[in-house]
Amino acid sequence: MNDSELHHVVIIGAGFGGLAVAHQLAGAPVRITVIDQRNHHLFQPLLYQVGTASLATSEIAWPIRHLLRKRKEVTTLLAVVSGIDAARHEVLLEDGATVAFDTLVLATGARHAYFGHDEWESYAPGLKTLEDATSIRRRILLSLERAERETDPERRAALLTFVIVGGGPTGVELAGAIAELAHQNLAADFRRIDTRKTRVLLIEAGPRILPGFTADLSAYAHTAIERLGVEIQLGSPVSECSARGVVYGAHTVAADVILWAAGVRASPAAAWLDLAADNAGRVRVEADLTAPGHAEIFVIGDTATINAWKGKPAPGIAPAAKQQGVHVAGTIKRRLQGDARVRPFHYRHGGNLATIGKRSAVIDFGWIKIRGRLAWWIWGLAHIYFLIGLRNRLAVALSWLWIYTTGNRSACLITQVDHRPKPK
Amino acid sequence: MNDSELHHVVIIGAGFGGLAVAHQLAGAPVRITVIDQRNHHLFQPLLYQVGTASLATSEIAWPIRHLLRKRKEVTTLLAVVSGIDAARHEVLLEDGATVAFDTLVLATGARHAYFGHDEWESYAPGLKTLEDATSIRRRILLSLERAERETDPERRAALLTFVIVGGGPTGVELAGAIAELAHQNLAADFRRIDTRKTRVLLIEAGPRILPGFTADLSAYAHTAIERLGVEIQLGSPVSECSARGVVYGAHTVAADVILWAAGVRASPAAAWLDLAADNAGRVRVEADLTAPGHAEIFVIGDTATINAWKGKPAPGIAPAAKQQGVHVAGTIKRRLQGDARVRPFHYRHGGNLATIGKRSAVIDFGWIKIRGRLAWWIWGLAHIYFLIGLRNRLAVALSWLWIYTTGNRSACLITQVDHRPKPK
Repeated sequence: MNDSELHHVVIIGAGFGGLAVAHQLAGAPVRITVIDQRNHHLFQPLLYQVGTASLATSEIAWPIRHLLRKRKEVTTLLAVVSGIDAARHEVLLEDGATVAFDTLVLATGARHAYFGHDEWESYAPGLKTLEDATSIRRRILLSLERAERETDPERRAALLTFVIVGGGPTGVELAGAIAELAHQNLAADFRRIDTRKTRVLLIEAGPRILPGFTADLSAYAHTAIERLGVEIQLGSPVSECSARGVVYGAHTVAADVILWAAGVRASPAAAWLDLAADNAGRVRVEADLTAPGHAEIFVIGDTATINAWKGKPAPGIAPAAKQQGVHVAGTIKRRLQGDARVRPFHYRHGGNLATIGKRSAVIDFGWIKIRGRLAWWIWGLAHIYFLIGLRNRLAVALSWLWIYTTGNRSACLITQVDHRPKPK
Repeated sequence: MNDSELHHVVIIGAGFGGLAVAHQLAGAPVRITVIDQRNHHLFQPLLYQVGTASLATSEIAWPIRHLLRKRKEVTTLLAVVSGIDAARHEVLLEDGATVAFDTLVLATGARHAYFGHDEWESYAPGLKTLEDATSIRRRILLSLERAERETDPERRAALLTFVIVGGGPTGVELAGAIAELAHQNLAADFRRIDTRKTRVLLIEAGPRILPGFTADLSAYAHTAIERLGVEIQLGSPVSECSARGVVYGAHTVAADVILWAAGVRASPAAAWLDLAADNAGRVRVEADLTAPGHAEIFVIGDTATINAWKGKPAPGIAPAAKQQGVHVAGTIKRRLQGDARVRPFHYRHGGNLATIGKRSAVIDFGWIKIRGRLAWWIWGLAHIYFLIGLRNRLAVALSWLWIYTTGNRSACLITQVDHRPKPK
């Protein structure tokens, strides 16, 4: 059989879901094309540590084609998808090229969303990409640098105020890491400002932080993060983000750095397929993760929504995307063997984890709840285990060990600001 | 004595020279202000390894204020200097602020220069900053990605041609590292192109590469780098760089990636002081490294030129800048003790080093010349030794060990390209 006669699986997006499909199809009689708009797979659970100067970008990201280099039947393309022609079975690329498919897997993820206030993005960046992380790191460090040079006390206070909008795991992890950075790690570095007095404000619209956790773990995290010096404001939807700061209820807080961890919106896969989406833009997929009306198109991960967790939607976390990828690969392999039965996807929940600074965490495995230092160690070991490759495990372990024992963060770099003098 | 009555030394630039002044003034009855337009000190000798995906940015750069955090008399400012008012003893900052000094040290370095063709910079970037390095890495990797998708053979050939202009140590190190990256490390990662056929062309205007080395070491390097697959073109000044490629003599080479390692130009310190400069913009300083007519202003490193090496100019390398910094600190300390005698600076040459890929190097200590694998090990150990801090030594050693044994480079990331979909 000629290679080009093999069943062609096209996977768009090399996140946890897309890569799981590619890995599980090893050995199947298919050829595979992986398309991503970036050249790297990103370990998003640790992205906040790049944003807060603990890890380097290369410690949590790997070139996709390198991850798949031993799979000769896999072609990786760096390209931006602009649409799908479902009738002709073609993916349309932004540069005008097309890629034909027999089976298509859409695993294109999500971006942060501003509930109809896209204009807030330039004032309150979110954290989804390496660029987001280096941009957040630059904003945090530049704000401290500017405070060191500012003489007006009011402006200085605004430069020393960091606001995090959203009390989910990302917001809590960012707030904890920023508090430790300012209150502990950088305390000896400045002469005119006292970074220990930096105000770190976590604003949550709902009645408690970490709403995905049980009430007692959420209360524990509340106390633990306050102990790190984070101020928490509950029941406070933000009504404005601007260059001046944030407004919630009747309060205005002057702040130069606002970070957004309050919501995500799926990539435009639903629009590509002209399908109904939920209010976060996710495709409501069938029980077997196919797009309604398109048996040969699967949608997984943050791009899809499915009530596959005891009647509730599967959560938007890495394990859910991976399990869906494995399920889709299984379906594809069975179909190639002539078995077209629909097997519904069921999500198996491993647990919820969130860190609170570098000494504490909360973990809810369902059957057991762990909090404090032991939870932090389990969290750390689990994340090192899930990193790809021995080299990154060693590098991240070294970085963490170093920060843990010395308090010195290794990646406090302000980059991508063009300071160069104008040519004469 | 009140702190503000202490003699105030202002150091502009926290490169090797500026930091040496600050370090050597420890314990002297002075207060010090260090001004830099970036927040980090950069270990430039290893910058080409960031540009060619071997090292991460944070492995060779350190926040200046962190390096000086234990010195309570040192204030670090992130600011852009726009001029010097020598009569009023004031440094002028771009934002309108001024900093008064008793003694001023200008250690502002150099940028790459295009011999009057500044318009070449966007086509042929040089390598002086972390941003330069990540930009070069992005260009190299993107060119391979585009070649993988290109169907026109002529365009594909241009995408697989890398031109390095300038055969000094930086050009040789870049060419060797790019050849290894394309011909060895990435060979298994692509499906449609054969990266082993990538053309790496090193163009040197003079009669041999590494003109600062002896003729036999230069000849050895020539052979060694050709063995890595680099094509060398000698006696060929480049007459044009454009989006199409480079022109030298009667030849035109179509290439998407052109890297510039052919010349530098000092920062505008001479213009700030209204002093004569040599043709590379460097201030011709007095024997004690003071600016002519300004006994209280020192100019060191790549910003200055002085015939302090047996009648020849001291070279533009890190050890020369460091020695000058130490000399200046000594002069300042003696002056504070009432000893105003002029002590001329003499440069002591330690040696010349250049690497050729990851298995070979040439070293000229003067009294002994070493080449090949042993030279590479000496080069590697010397550079790890000169890195700042145990953590970075461990991290770089781990990165090198990994590349050396596995051939996998850890930092093949394309970043800072805005791929995000337009908001709907």
